[in-house]
Formats: sequence, structure tokens, C-alpha cells
Amino acid sequence: MAQAGTRMRPRIAFLLGDVGGVGPEMGVKLLADTAVRAAAELLLIADPLVLGEGERVAGAKLPVQRVATADAPMPAGDAIAWLADDALGGVLPPRAQSSAEAGRAALRSLELASAAARRGAVQGIVFAPLNKHSLRLAGMTHEDELRYLQEALAVPGFVCEFNITGELWTSRVTSHVPLRDVAPLITGPAVREAVHIIDAALKRAGVARPRIAVSGLNPHAGDGGSIGTEEIEVIEPAVRALQAEGLDARGPFSPDTVFIAARRGDFDAVVSMYHDQGQIAMKLMGFERGVTLHGGLPVPVSTPASGSAFDIAGKGIARIDGLRAAFELNVRMAGAGR
Amino acid sequence: MAQAGTRMRPRIAFLLGDVGGVGPEMGVKLLADTAVRAAAELLLIADPLVLGEGERVAGAKLPVQRVATADAPMPAGDAIAWLADDALGGVLPPRAQSSAEAGRAALRSLELASAAARRGAVQGIVFAPLNKHSLRLAGMTHEDELRYLQEALAVPGFVCEFNITGELWTSRVTSHVPLRDVAPLITGPAVREAVHIIDAALKRAGVARPRIAVSGLNPHAGDGGSIGTEEIEVIEPAVRALQAEGLDARGPFSPDTVFIAARRGDFDAVVSMYHDQGQIAMKLMGFERGVTLHGGLPVPVSTPASGSAFDIAGKGIARIDGLRAAFELNVRMAGAGR
Repeated sequence: MAQAGTRMRPRIAFLLGDVGGVGPEMGVKLLADTAVRAAAELLLIADPLVLGEGERVAGAKLPVQRVATADAPMPAGDAIAWLADDALGGVLPPRAQSSAEAGRAALRSLELASAAARRGAVQGIVFAPLNKHSLRLAGMTHEDELRYLQEALAVPGFVCEFNITGELWTSRVTSHVPLRDVAPLITGPAVREAVHIIDAALKRAGVARPRIAVSGLNPHAGDGGSIGTEEIEVIEPAVRALQAEGLDARGPFSPDTVFIAARRGDFDAVVSMYHDQGQIAMKLMGFERGVTLHGGLPVPVSTPASGSAFDIAGKGIARIDGLRAAFELNVRMAGAGR
Repeated sequence: MAQAGTRMRPRIAFLLGDVGGVGPEMGVKLLADTAVRAAAELLLIADPLVLGEGERVAGAKLPVQRVATADAPMPAGDAIAWLADDALGGVLPPRAQSSAEAGRAALRSLELASAAARRGAVQGIVFAPLNKHSLRLAGMTHEDELRYLQEALAVPGFVCEFNITGELWTSRVTSHVPLRDVAPLITGPAVREAVHIIDAALKRAGVARPRIAVSGLNPHAGDGGSIGTEEIEVIEPAVRALQAEGLDARGPFSPDTVFIAARRGDFDAVVSMYHDQGQIAMKLMGFERGVTLHGGLPVPVSTPASGSAFDIAGKGIARIDGLRAAFELNVRMAGAGR
């Protein structure tokens, strides 16, 4: 019987990302660590060639055992259950570039992982860096992998991406929209939804009472209404409503100082209003070694913030800090259950 | 006779800022340094009570010698010429708060410095932190001290504020305007003017061929037009026009990575499109110890980026790094002549 306070060892689907990039070598390096294998039951979903390429570059051989389905019993000891999916048909795509073939193999592994998550066979999904262009060449028509997963996991509601550096989480009310379209999209419901979803995710990650800073939209957060009125008319009322619901939401804060306070540790999360408000700060604060978490999905889905890095693919020098952090966060959240 | 390549020792008007804040103690601490006094002919413009208060808190006595006008011959040795202006009428305003009296004394010193600059009696102006609210209480109706100086120095054209941290300069095409109004203000002439003015200032500060990065407006600089078209329609043509004029301007770059490249040393300056694009980055990069330079005026006018800091005023603990950097930059630019 589990002790009070302990969490179950979750079952995690693990994907190697785009075979043209650094994903497979990063994945193999991480899974070669016995402490990583001890933390979760691992279901590796990978084409045999992709796994082989990762093992070759990483210079490590993983203790895998083939399984026929995601629901198969886990192998004994710390071996990795491997769902081998022959998406490449025995032909390795070119390294260090996007290709439809690489994209197809990556997309197949996402499909299988989503299906496993839908029927409860895994409690989390971690993937090494994908390449958006490969996914598009392979026929993905969604805006990004988050929207793809939203559909694959049949999630009707609001989803959003969290960016995590160290202990600091961020999300944004609007994302890939032109700057001239941002202001009309800042509505009370949108702000409240963004705060609710990051609050729920932080709680699942083990933060009992998340301290959430809400950024303003305008310079100096509008400076009392003299540089824009969205703070007074929209954001402040939304923050007050969230507080009335019992959340520890605060703001709106001046966009150019809120990240300094957050970096100091004053907050667990910053909810920003638009893409670059958060991304300028996070990238300067080392987000390239951080984690992207897809929020609002029924299981935690996480990946390193860094990309497929074609320039160093195959050299065995890609750092795995981000992938390790993505894995550790996923285990923590998946182990906490729904 | 001066050697080839040497610069003249310029005459600099030095102001102590708001007497309610840390300005006077910072100013006295800096001017107590003999190396500082050796670098320029100093014209201190200050009310006797403001100077006395700064000396008392800083625990230093400055070697001042009263002069009747800004044009008076400089005292011998490294003594400071002091233009005493009795703006306070012998009554010290309260510490650690804004007041009309403190604002009036600060405004008087700005008036006298501007007048001296207009008739060529000084080649630069440096001031310790002002307090905008005090200036307003004292009757300043301008948007900020830059607009005040623009009028006082009779400058008809474009002026703008530069923010400088270490070796990196930034300016912005738009400043204190609501975010929803930014996009329509991003025009070809505005972008070109902003780049020209920072290019000229950097050259005057000794950078022979300034490398200037121009930021995009939209996420990922519009990503080829899929997230906004200002990069394609406005910013890129402006950058090409600047290149055709011989400037080393490049871009538009993605707003969330341009500062990483700049921090690495790839550029001397970043021209951003709106307030928080630049300020989020600069503040995270330590701009509180940096310099604000008012650009487009006939003489360099510089001040530390930090404010009047009422919370620590009178304690003698305010750091003077920013004021020192503001002074050194001013001497370099003033010494280079027009």
C-alpha cells in the first residue's frame, strides 16, 4: 500500500521527435539514465530506424523490450516497453533537414501516443524536439502540435502553451496573432480562462497555492489610464473576479518590471497578454534550456523548449537539460493523477 | 597644442536632480572623485540647500567656487564652478516625497543649464535623478523632461530617448502610446528617422560604424507575412533604404531573439518598435544601472536610468554606477564636438 503523500509511478509515453534533428540522440541519452527509468514506466513509441539512429549517435544501447500494444504489461526490471512503429519503411530520411518522411514518423508516434492517452494506457506524453516544417510536409494542417493534440485528444475547450524556466511558469492570453489585433482579444473571459488553466496546472505540478502575476497590456500598465484603458476596463476587473473565486492572482503589473519580480521569486507564474511580452523575457532568462508544457489537455504533454537544431544534429553534442526537465515535470504531474 | 586624436576637455553642466530623492547625495559622491573632476570642466548648477543636503548625506565636501554666470572663467585646479541658484528660498522641502518646491528647484537648474547650452557656454548636461511628479507639481506641462528640453533648447525636429546598458544602445519608434495604437504609427519615415538619430548619436559617442538591429513588430517578425504584414510592407523597405544610404542597419529581426544576439555583442544598438519590446529586455539586462540619453538635442543630455528612489533617500546607500556611466558618456560625446 502506498504511503500517504507518495505518488504512483506513472506510465509515460516517450517520443523521439524529428529524426532529422537532435531528438533521437537526446531521447536515447536521457533514457540511458537508470534514474530516469526508475521514475516512470516508460512506453517508447518509435520507428526502429529512428531508435537505431539515436542509439548510434548517442553511443548507447537502450534496454528495450518490444510490446504489441500500448496496454501490454510492462517488462520486468527497468526495461523500456517499446512500441515499434515502422513508419519509415526501412529508409532513413536525410539528416539535418526537414522531410515529409521524418514528419510522417513523428506524426505517427504522436497519433499512437494520443490514442494510448485517450484510453488511459499512459498518464503523460513527453517528446523530444519535433520540426514543424517536417510535420507540415507530412500533412499536418493544424496551427501547431498543440492544436493537433487538442483534436487527437478530443479536447473541446481552451488549450494553451506554458513556457517554464526553472521554477517560473508563463502563459499568454493571445499567441500567434499580429500585434495590431492583440488589444481587441484581451477580454475578461480570456484573461480569467488563461489564469484558471495555469493555476490548475501548477496545482497538479505540486504548487499548493500558485502565486500568479497578471501583466498589463500597455506601457506602465496604462499609468492610471493615461496610456490605454484595458487595464482599468478589462484586466483589473478580471483579476478581482479571480481573487473573489479564491485564486492568488495579482495585477495588472507593468509589463517591463513584472518579470524582474518573478525572476526574484515573487511569483510562480506570469500570465502575459501577448506573445513577445512573455517570450522576450523568457528567452533572455534562459528559456532555451526550459520546458514547453501543453496545457488544457487530459494528460500532461511536455517537450524541451529548444528545437530540432539541425545545425548540430548527429554530432552527439545536444544538451539534454530541457528534455530532462520536461520529463521530470511530466512524471510529477502524471503521478498526481487527474 | 592638442595631439591628433585627442579630444578637448569639455565643459559640462551638472545638476543634482530632485532634493527629495537620492540625486544630491549621488551627485556629490560622484564629483568628490578627483578623476571625475579631471575629465571635464564642471559647472555645478544647484541651490545652496540642495548642495548642502547632498554633501551632508554623502559625507563629503566639494571644492566649489561660486561663479556669477555660466560663462565665467573656470576656477583654477580641479575646483568646480558653482552657479548657485537660490530657488528654495532657504527652506528645505520634505525628504522622500514629491513636492512643488523640490520640483521648482530642479526645473530652475534645467532652465539655467539649457540657457547655458543654447549660448554655447557648456557642451553637455548631466543630471542626477529627477522626479516627474515634483516637476509636474512645479508646473511642468510637458510629457517628460525630454520634451521640456526640446522646447528649452529650441529643437524643431525629431527627438527620442536612448536607453544604454553597458555597450548596448536602444531606442524605440513609438513610446508612451497604448498598445492598440502602435501598429499604425510604424511608418517608413518613423523607422528611418529612429535609425538615423541613433546612428548619429553612436558615431558621436565614438562608434565609427554603428551596427544597428531593427526589430520586427509582430511575433517571429511576422513569419513571412503569416502573423502580420508590417515587416514586409514597412520595416524591411525602410531597412533597405537605410542600407542604400550607407548605414549598417539590419533586420527586421524577431523581437524575442534580437536582444539575445545584441547581448552577445552582435549589434551596437537595437531599434525597437514599441515601449515594452525594448524595456522588458533592457530591464532584465540590468538597465537600472544603465543610462538614459536624450537624443536629437544640440548637446548630449544624460542621466542615470534609475529614479529618485525615495525609499532609500538620505541613507547614503544609493549606488552611483548609472550616474558615473551617464557622466562618462556625456564627456565622450561633448568632447567630440558637434
